[in-house]
This record gives sequence, C-alpha cells and structure tokens, in this order.
Amino acid sequence: MGFPEAATGAGTALLTDHYELTMLASALADGTADRPCVFEVFARRLPDGRRYGVVAGTGRVLDSIADFRFTDAELSQLEATAVVDDATLSWLADYSFQGNIDGYPEGELYFPGSPILTVAGSFGEAVVLETLILSILNHDSAIASAAARMSGAAHGRPIIEMGGRRTHEWAAVAAARAAYLAGFATTSNLEAGRRYGIPTRGTVAHAFMLLHDSEEEAFHAQVDKMGADTTLLVDTYDITKGIETAVRVAGTELGAIRIDSGDVGPLARKAREQLDALGAKDTRIVVSGDLDEHAIAALRAEPVDAYGVGTSVVTGSGAPTAGMVYKLVDVDGKPVAKRSAHKESRGGRKSVLRRHRDTGTAVEEVIWTAAAPSSQVPEQGPNDHELQIPLVRDGRTVNDLPTLDDARQRLRRALVSLPWEGLKLSHGEPAIPTVFV
Amino acid sequence: MGFPEAATGAGTALLTDHYELTMLASALADGTADRPCVFEVFARRLPDGRRYGVVAGTGRVLDSIADFRFTDAELSQLEATAVVDDATLSWLADYSFQGNIDGYPEGELYFPGSPILTVAGSFGEAVVLETLILSILNHDSAIASAAARMSGAAHGRPIIEMGGRRTHEWAAVAAARAAYLAGFATTSNLEAGRRYGIPTRGTVAHAFMLLHDSEEEAFHAQVDKMGADTTLLVDTYDITKGIETAVRVAGTELGAIRIDSGDVGPLARKAREQLDALGAKDTRIVVSGDLDEHAIAALRAEPVDAYGVGTSVVTGSGAPTAGMVYKLVDVDGKPVAKRSAHKESRGGRKSVLRRHRDTGTAVEEVIWTAAAPSSQVPEQGPNDHELQIPLVRDGRTVNDLPTLDDARQRLRRALVSLPWEGLKLSHGEPAIPTVFV
Repeated sequence: MGFPEAATGAGTALLTDHYELTMLASALADGTADRPCVFEVFARRLPDGRRYGVVAGTGRVLDSIADFRFTDAELSQLEATAVVDDATLSWLADYSFQGNIDGYPEGELYFPGSPILTVAGSFGEAVVLETLILSILNHDSAIASAAARMSGAAHGRPIIEMGGRRTHEWAAVAAARAAYLAGFATTSNLEAGRRYGIPTRGTVAHAFMLLHDSEEEAFHAQVDKMGADTTLLVDTYDITKGIETAVRVAGTELGAIRIDSGDVGPLARKAREQLDALGAKDTRIVVSGDLDEHAIAALRAEPVDAYGVGTSVVTGSGAPTAGMVYKLVDVDGKPVAKRSAHKESRGGRKSVLRRHRDTGTAVEEVIWTAAAPSSQVPEQGPNDHELQIPLVRDGRTVNDLPTLDDARQRLRRALVSLPWEGLKLSHGEPAIPTVFV
Repeated sequence: MGFPEAATGAGTALLTDHYELTMLASALADGTADRPCVFEVFARRLPDGRRYGVVAGTGRVLDSIADFRFTDAELSQLEATAVVDDATLSWLADYSFQGNIDGYPEGELYFPGSPILTVAGSFGEAVVLETLILSILNHDSAIASAAARMSGAAHGRPIIEMGGRRTHEWAAVAAARAAYLAGFATTSNLEAGRRYGIPTRGTVAHAFMLLHDSEEEAFHAQVDKMGADTTLLVDTYDITKGIETAVRVAGTELGAIRIDSGDVGPLARKAREQLDALGAKDTRIVVSGDLDEHAIAALRAEPVDAYGVGTSVVTGSGAPTAGMVYKLVDVDGKPVAKRSAHKESRGGRKSVLRRHRDTGTAVEEVIWTAAAPSSQVPEQGPNDHELQIPLVRDGRTVNDLPTLDDARQRLRRALVSLPWEGLKLSHGEPAIPTVFV
C-alpha cells in the first residue's frame, strides 16, 4: 500500500533485519539474551574528504523506539514465515525497551569514532533495535551533513529544500527535517510542515506557465491569486522577455523572480540589472536547478537572494549514507571487540569530551573507556565540553530533550567552534582529530 | 513520530510540494484547473555512464494514488498554515483521481526520453500527484537499476539484500522490493517480507559471537537452535580457526560460512580449500562487506556461493536517484513545451515502440507524437514491442496488472534482449538509442 501502516495496522517493529530475531531466538534458548550489554553507534570514518559530520535523527529514533512493539500484525507474520519459535514470539509480544540510552544531541558535530549513541540493556532488548536506529541515524545524518555544507556556502542567504521528488516519499519528509536542522530556511514538503512545523514555501512550476495560453496570462493568474509579493518563474520561454512581462504584470512591488535553468550566475547578474533598470530594485532573485554546495559557493559574488536545492541535499551530495554502525562493546561489564581485518573495533563503553582552546576553537575529540589508566583519563577543563546527554532512562524518554530549533542553534555554535580549515568544502582530513586514550 | 501516520491519522496527500497546491489554487481561481492535460514522466538522461534504467515502483505509485485523499488531518493543516484558500480546500476535500494512466510495466527497461508514465486528467487532478509519483519512481527505479547490474555481475549466484540500515527506514522496505524485482534472491528486511512476500533471510551478526564467552560457544548456541544447515560467521577472530571450529561444532553438514571482512576473494579461496580438506565439501561460502557490482564481478572466478549486498544497492551504487521528471506535454489536446536553456522538452503526448532484430536483440526505442508526419510514424512490425500498458482508467486501477514476480521475469527477458555491450558494467552510451520521430 502507498503509505506504511494504514493498510496493515502495523508499526515499526518489522523495520528490522531477520538476523536480529534469529540471534534473539538463539540467545533466549541458551540463556544469554539477558546478559547486560552496551551497544554503541559510531562511524569508522567520515565520507570521503568530509571535514565533519552532523548528528541528526536522534529525535526520530526516540519516537520510533517508543513505538517499537510487536502486535498481532507483526507476530502473525513472524509465525507464518517461521522466522522464530514460540518462546521468542512470547518474548516479543511483551517487548518494550527498558534500558538506558545516551547520545550526542541532534545538531552536534561528530568525527570518526565519536560515540554518537550508547544503548545499554539486555542483549535481547538492545539487539532488536539495531536496524531501526541505524536506518534513521544513517539517513538523517547524511542529509544534515550535506545540508550544513550548503548552508555554510550560502553565507546567510536562505535556502529552500525542494528535493522530495528525488528520494523515497517518506525519506523526503525526514530529509526536509534534517535540512532544516542544518540551517535551511524552508521546505517545499507539506508533510514536513505538518509533522515538524517546518515553514513550507512554493509558488508555481513550469506546468503552470504552460497551462496558460501565454506567459502574461499565467503571471496575471498568479499575481491575482497570490499578490505581487510572489515569485514569478521567468525562464519558461525567454528570460529577458519574462522579466519584462513579470514587472509589467506585477509592478515594481514584485516579490521575486525564479531562474531554474541555464548558467544561473550570469543570468542572475543580467536579471539584476534588468530589474533595477525597470525600477524593481527590491525584487529578489531566487535560483535553482542542480545546485550543490560547490555551485552555491560559486554564486557567492552574484546577486542571488535565495537558493532552491533539491537532488543534492536529499541524496547527501555524494554521500547518501553516513555509514554508522551499531556495535556490541560491552557484555556483563567487560569490553568485547572483534578482530576482523579492516573492521577492528574498540571494546568497552566510551566516554568522550571535546577539548577547546580559550578562544573557543575545538582542538580534539578525546575518547576513553573504563580500561584506560586513570592517569590518562582526561580531567574536564573549563574549555572541554561533554558531548553525550541522557536520552532514555529505564525505557522512558527523558523530559525536556532539545527541540529541532535547539538542534539548529547547537549546530550553528558547533560550526563556529571549528578551526577554519574545517569549514572548507574541499576534500581533506577531519576538522579535529579523534584521540583514543 | 516514528512511523508515518499512526500518530496522526493522515495519509499520503501531504507528500506533496507546496507549489502544487498554490498552482491549483490559482488555476481554480482563473478557471484553468479543469483544462484536460497530459503529464509525462521521463528521464532526460541515464545516470553517468549507465547503459539502461529499470522501471520500478509503478505498483507502489498506483497504491499511493488510490490512497491519495485529503481528510480532515490534511485539510486542517492546510487551513492552519494558510497554504490555500477555502475554495481550494473544498476542492481537495472531494479529490480523487478520475483520469487515465498508462506506463511502462515494472521490470521494463527505459532509456533517455522513454515515456515511462503518462497521466491524463484535468490540470488540477494531475498536477497534485507530481511529487508522490516522482518520489516513488525516482527512488525505486534507482535501486532496481543498480540491483540489475549486480544481479548480472553475480551470474546466477544468489544475492541477499541487506542494506536496510544504510537508508531511511521506510526507503529500506521499498529498496528490498526493488532489489528483488531486479533479481536479488532474498532480503534481510522483515517488513519487506510482510508487505511484499519477499523471502527473508538472516542468521547472526558479530554481536552474537561477542555475546558468548568463546566462538565455540556461540557456534554451539546457533547450531543447537538453527541446526547444522545454518550460516556460521567465521571472521570474528581468526578465519582459519573459525572455520575449523565451525566444522567441528556443526559437522560436515554445515550449511554455509560467512566472511564479512578483509579481501574476500583470496579468503574465499583459502576457505574453500580448508572446508574441502575438512570434508565439508557442500558447505557454501557467503561473502559480504561493501560489495558493489564491480566487486561482485571481480569475484566471479572465486569459489563464492552467495553474496550479501547492503550499502551499494540501497544507495543506487553511485546513482541514488533516477532523475525522472513529470512534465506537462499537452493542454486541451495541443502540445506544450518550455524552451528553457538545457532543459528543453518535447511537447505532445508520446507513443513508443521498441524495435528488435529477428534474433530478438533490441535495436532502438522509437518515440513519436500526434504531430509526427504520418509517413514517419512507425508501423509495428513483428519484432517491435509496445511498451506502455493501461494502468488506470477513469480513476480505477485496471485489473490483473503484472505482479512483482511478473516484473522479475520481464526484466530478465528484457536484459537478454540487449546488445551485449549494453550489459557491460563500464561507463558508456545507452544500450540502444532513443529515436524521436
């Protein structure tokens, strides 16, 4: 069916990989499912050449965990397909997460190895959350990380997210949320407006222009309905004529024109001259059409007032997933780690601080475990920030968690704290090193 | 909330860009909303260097359109945020699509300009579907197009899709469907099993190995529960020791081993020798870990029995969106087209045939409109295939549409029909040219 559970009455609990339930079944059978465990979410590396990552999706993770229940709809499917045995079905029927979760708040930066989320609970209750947690964090963080680069490149000019049509229909809603978190001004996605209160914007597409017998008629129809303070799309036929007609129809009060094709830099310059000459000095220029952070940066000197960004932001601008993993690091209070080639991981529950200079510039991410010699455990100085906050206690989401707007503010502050090289768009090393004690 | 509409009672109708509704409002006001229109979905080009695209998602599009209704949940949001006026709200309250849709069936190949979906209806009823239709087709076709390359590279060896954790949680379900359509054998995603009947598979992750006090105990727990015909993960510590222990615990009846790290080619060869020497001649070797179509092709000569593929398939292996657009091509029976730089499009409702040689090899995609001189309109020869089928008539989905398994078969046949260069993984031109009459 078109949207997830209307047709089925089911929730998030089957957004899960088969092996999580077969592991659970085996662990229930041999008594290990109750062992206290700690799982950690981290990224082994940043996407190729990126300087930082942006944590996004934590709020959606917490909501999804609260909804993670095996009702009859899920249990009957698992029974019919014999994924697990009756004992496991009973266990799942009673399931609700009762453990603790700590993590980086949304909008915080992360670097290779940063312990972004720490899930503590029995093996059984924590292992079944792997896929759902990773899906949300990997997607939303990939979008936010790309969007933050675009926001930086736009240098204060507003960006509208309009990429919903280039990604899965529900991913589009989450992408609008992540882009807004990372500084975008608005979105075209109405469901993101409803669900997250993000301001939505839009006027017309080329279809509206072609629907009418002439450009002038289309402009009249739009201005009659939306007023002169609207955005007229001037590139359906000839841009120069389009601008002339637009100002004739809407007057010099015209809100904005949009250019969605061609070499938008020179076109914007020409449009600005023309608008000024026509007396429409306050009419803004909005550009769109295959813009990414590099194209936005290249337009910095041009008379552009706002950007529309679609494909590149919803696909993570070359890095569509954040590559985070969910690894068991502690069993019964003892560190565990695999020793596979190229995928070695560090056992033990991590603690973390970000160190800063007196000036506020970030210096390094320091990570340690209980196994670290006490002489090497960093003491928290006045310029060091704790990064994890409590998110869930005994299965309940803690009160007064940061909001989406808090996350926007946090990210803005965090980006200001980076060394200047860390804000470069070009490929390079992470903005600050991760130091494992 | 964690999953789309449980918390809200709302459906798919706000998976829509703001401008579709403001266009609608203006068109209702000036009387153009009722004009009979034709919109077409096509891709201007294939992703960089790809030889073909695979149509996927049409079934999901039809289900979504059937669910596309503006109920109180949507209308109150639109009213509260003043997106449209009261007249438009009333129109939306009565909305259900009453037009006709034709399109390429799922599993069909497409090329630049192929008219993948043709939506005929009033401007108002057709324009509001733009985002939903494009989101689904762009996502699902991107995944299926990548997955088809992987299936080809695997040359008959089964592939399990296990990338759900690397993409948005509901995109994961659609991705599993698209990968299955494109020849993957199974998925790890339980919701895809429930929703689409796709066979699901999975055994254990490294976490299960680390949960136990030794590799041997973990293998015992797994074999006790799942039987010897399971897949043991042998690369948590030392692969050679792991295989030795695996066969000692499970016996020579062991179903399979999985290697998820390191240089899997040489490791598979060594593992095969070791398994054979231990008498486990029928034990299969499953490899996974950052595989894409090129890595799969490079393993063709190795003793690998099955592949697990994650990140690369759910992110479209470098092409995460198909780049399809939804363009107004006909108003009141007359062709319309914009003339923007670099984005010029061809007006008029398209007809299409794919021509083949007597041998069955595809030659070209021929596309024409009613404006084409009758002398140039191709006659359908015995080797020419019609590509569009009726999907919706007067708002109702037609009966007996092809199933997901039909789509699998169709794609298999279509790939066989391509000239051999068209199946190469390397960058190149589309496998067959698109000819506009």
